Formats: sequence, structure tokens, C-alpha cells
Amino acid sequence: MKVPEDLLAFLHKGKQFFIATHISPDGDALGSSIALAMALESLGKKTIVYDKDSVPEFYKFLPGHERFTNSISSLKSSAEASEPARGGQISNLILVDCNDLERIGLENLKFISSAVIDHHETGREFGDIKWIEPQAPATGMMIFYLMKELGIKITEEIATNLYSAIAIDTGTFRYSNTTPEILRIAAELIEAGAAPYYIAENLYETWSENRFRLLLKVLNTLEINNDIAITKVTLDMFRETGTTVEDTENFPGFSRMLRSIKISALFREIEKDHYKVSLRSKGKINVAKIAESFDGGGHRNAAGYKIRSDFKAAKEALLKAIFTLKK
Amino acid sequence: MKVPEDLLAFLHKGKQFFIATHISPDGDALGSSIALAMALESLGKKTIVYDKDSVPEFYKFLPGHERFTNSISSLKSSAEASEPARGGQISNLILVDCNDLERIGLENLKFISSAVIDHHETGREFGDIKWIEPQAPATGMMIFYLMKELGIKITEEIATNLYSAIAIDTGTFRYSNTTPEILRIAAELIEAGAAPYYIAENLYETWSENRFRLLLKVLNTLEINNDIAITKVTLDMFRETGTTVEDTENFPGFSRMLRSIKISALFREIEKDHYKVSLRSKGKINVAKIAESFDGGGHRNAAGYKIRSDFKAAKEALLKAIFTLKK
Repeated sequence: MKVPEDLLAFLHKGKQFFIATHISPDGDALGSSIALAMALESLGKKTIVYDKDSVPEFYKFLPGHERFTNSISSLKSSAEASEPARGGQISNLILVDCNDLERIGLENLKFISSAVIDHHETGREFGDIKWIEPQAPATGMMIFYLMKELGIKITEEIATNLYSAIAIDTGTFRYSNTTPEILRIAAELIEAGAAPYYIAENLYETWSENRFRLLLKVLNTLEINNDIAITKVTLDMFRETGTTVEDTENFPGFSRMLRSIKISALFREIEKDHYKVSLRSKGKINVAKIAESFDGGGHRNAAGYKIRSDFKAAKEALLKAIFTLKK
Repeated sequence: MKVPEDLLAFLHKGKQFFIATHISPDGDALGSSIALAMALESLGKKTIVYDKDSVPEFYKFLPGHERFTNSISSLKSSAEASEPARGGQISNLILVDCNDLERIGLENLKFISSAVIDHHETGREFGDIKWIEPQAPATGMMIFYLMKELGIKITEEIATNLYSAIAIDTGTFRYSNTTPEILRIAAELIEAGAAPYYIAENLYETWSENRFRLLLKVLNTLEINNDIAITKVTLDMFRETGTTVEDTENFPGFSRMLRSIKISALFREIEKDHYKVSLRSKGKINVAKIAESFDGGGHRNAAGYKIRSDFKAAKEALLKAIFTLKK
């Protein structure tokens, strides 16, 4: 994996960087962004780290998570102070783990200069400098190589962020993107101070009792239709357990553990007769295609859409769409 | 990690080996035993691979699992044939992932010569040759080094067995025994043909619907007392879901995901007013001490015991024992 020369030049030249990552940030988005900020600061640069959404509670073990701001005005005033001649236009944007402004929720802002560091495939044009590596299991791996190239020491805090980023995006080395290369990088990150058990415990074993009770309620709704597992979460369930949407992170994946399942679908009630549907595939069926047929989108193995309908009809529409696709 | 010279000599000298592992075999026991058998066969040796219990259904993806026999008479007649002068006494026993005859359920047999390859700490004396590495995350890692030392090529089948052994005993690299060394070995095993996703899918995503329904019933019994999570499984639940004890593998660990929990306990009904209790600790409390107070045993983080009592009294006895230990 080769870090582009123009990206290195961009990072060497700038004095202040605006690092932004996608809405509903996951561990790779957060860990990669924080690690990049720490790395650039060790070179004497200033950084602002932005996410429109706040850091989910269970990611607050990541050292440096408090750097995240969701205030655009702080970006603007900082830009104003550093480059008054440009009238507060923002330069040196770095998009991390995403590749367009829409995904960061800043589609209406103008940026003077920008770079993209991402492992999601894209056909989009955004970014003066684009470093896209669809083969990389995690953006965290790209930040690792970037730091090597820049000759920056990986501190314990950076190692913890990068290890977490990689752990989340490989399902702690369970997904098909687990390669010898990523395991050797993980080994190096442990040597630099990352603690695998501490990270895994924080990622997987810090559920609130309420969240656990919500999961049980959801799993109790399980219906299996041939090779499709359907669960649902209702507004009543949130109310009864004192939980919110944030608590449903990973829920769509739970019924994957069933041998006979090819797709699992979680119907989340947004309001009466309005559902957000999250689809997960074990790889045999492309759920992005199904989501697209309902004007949604996503990846081959994880996709979603919204539908206005009662539950029964919404479920039948999904089963029909899957049946049509399979034919 | 240094393979003892006397073990290497023992393996070079023998022509036939009896490889045995512990009752209720897990992935490390199975994968390590099969890999060792394949390795010795590649040197032209004969092997018999023994477990008193049969291979659990969900480990049947391990290539070579069908080598396991639970017939002692086949051991004896094979010994008779190979060494008639010794009257059928068995030589060249290799205990894998355990270190005494009781753990393999053959405490009444006599062996002429024996070796032990294990990563469990022991004060016992069994074995003419003992190779015990309590620091090794898995016995599979020891077999890996043994093969290196013997100059044996790691085939795809062997790699799959060793990777599975390591995956199970490190919680696919989530437990505190996850080291840079074990990650680099895993990387090498992938290069030799192990497929991380295929293995993880088989280990974690091949639940029957009945087993899943049983898990739900069990989780629905969850009670939390301070930092202790208690669940139970009854004979009725097995009946209602068409499942058996084998299906409760991993169940004691599920409530670990709760942040506030230090210990999780699963009460399994053996018969009316008779329970097997499995304890899991997140590391702060030594559950072996608690199990010992009920004449059970185990490790710091995983232990168990049996108790004759109704559920309510059994539960109260446990809570009291934990409370006493904490003081």
C-alpha cells in the first residue's frame, strides 16, 4: 500500500487541518480520525476534528474522543482567524473513512482544499487529493501506513485508536477482510501499547442493562421465513426499556448466528406505520440491491431503507423483493 | 518457546501414537489433536486419536474430525497387534490440551510411555515427558512450534485446525491472552490456507433455530443482583426447544456483555432440585475460589460446581458465597 505523494505534500504544507468523518460514526471513523489528528499534532500542526453526530457512549473509551466537535461555527471562526483574507472559507479539509460532503452532513459548505482518505469504493469526484483503498479492511490501516511514511511514532493512545478502528471493521478478525497483513499490523499496535482485551471489553462488554433488555425484546420478535430472519423494534420497546435508537447498534447482526439464515432484517419503528429497515447478508445475497428497490442503499452485506406502511405489509414487501431478486 | 529435546526424540522414535484429549472437548483440544495426528502421519507414523466424548456437531467443520474414536477396545487391539509382547499395554500416549488421565476419562488404564503437551498450569506428575506452557494462549500454538521444529509443512487442513484452536482459546483475539506472537502465528496460518471468515462463521454463525430459541428462553430468565448476572436453563426448556446440554455451550458467557457485571452464573437443571452451576468472571473476582467452596473447581475466569437444592436456595447460597469472598 503506497501513500500518494500529493497527500504527503498536502500534510507537510498545511498548518491547520479540518478532519471530518461520517455521520453515525463507527469505531473506524472515530479511531482513524483521532489517530490522524494526534499524528498531525505531533508534527506541530493544529487540527479540528469534526463529526455532525456526537460520539456514541460506548466509544468514549477511545483516548482523545473529546476532541470531536459538532459545531460548524467553531470551524468557521477558526478558519476566519487563520485565514481572514479568505473570508472564513475553510481550507485543508481531510475526509476520513468517507468520501463526500453529504456523508459528513456539510454538503452546503465550500472548502478551498481537501483530501480524502477512505477504504470505501466510490465513483464520486470529491477531493483535490484522493486516497481510496477499497482493499484495505479499515481506514485505520491506511492511517497506520500514513504514519509510517511520515515517520511518526505510534504512541499508546494512537495504537489504541487504530487497533479499535481495525477491530471494529474486521469484527475483531472474524470477517472475510481478515488478512495476514492486518493481523501483523495489529501485532505491531499491541507492541505500541494497544491492549486487545481492554479494547474488546469496551467494544463488546459494556452494555447497559436497559440495552440488554431491549435486545431481548427484539430477539423475542424473531420470525424466520425460509432463510430470512426478521426482528423488529418498536417505539414502545424504547419507552419500556428507557433506550434510544443508538442502543440498537449491532442489533441487525444478531440473528446472523443462525446457520440457516442468509439475510437478517431489523424493522425499526420511526413513527406509526413508518419503518427503517436494516438488512444484513452473510454474503450470498446482495442486500444493497434489495435496499435499492425501496430507494435505499448500502453495501453488499449491509444495507437499509425506509418504508411507510404497517409492519405486516412492510414485511411482505421485503419478502417479495427478496424472492424476486433470487429468481 | 522451546520444544523439549526429549519430546522430539520421543516423537522421532515411536512408530504409532495414541493421541488423547480431554472430555467435553473444545476447539483447542480438537484442533490441536487433529493437527498433531496429521503432522505425525506426514512423518510416516501411525496415530489413533481418542476422545471419550464425541465431537460436538458444530466442530464437525474441522478437517479430519472423523479421526476421533471413543472406543478403548480399538486402542487396546491396536496395541495388541503392534506390541503383542506387552500384552496389549499401550505405549506412546500423547495427552493434548490436558495433563492427567482423569481429564481424558481413562484413569484406570496403564500406559507404558507417555508425553503431555498442554498449556494448562498443573502440579500433577503424570507423563514421562512433560511440555507445559502456561503462557501459551492455546495448545494449538505449541503444536505450531512443534511442527516448525520437526520441519513439517503446515498444510491447509492443519492450518485450519490450528487456527480454529487458537481462535477458540483467544475468543478470536478478544481475550487478554491475545499477544503479538499469536497474531503473527495466525497470519502465517492464513498464508498456509486457513480462512478466518470460514472458521469464524462455523464457530459463531451455525446455530440451529432450536438452540437460538433456547438461548432466548435462558436470557429471559436473567436476574441481576448487584454485579452478578444469573440465568438458568431448565429441563422443560430443553424439552420445549428440542435441545440438549451440548446446545448450552457458551451460554454462561452471554451476560458478560453487561457493563455492570463482574460475574455471570448459569444454573442448569440436571434433575429436580439438582443444578450444575457455571461461573464466568470478567477477571476481577476469582470464580475458582467460589466453585471450590461448593466442592467444584476451575480457573480464575471460568469455573463450575454442582448443588442439590431448589433453585431459590441454590441462588442464595451462591450470592452468599460471593459476598463472603468479597469481604
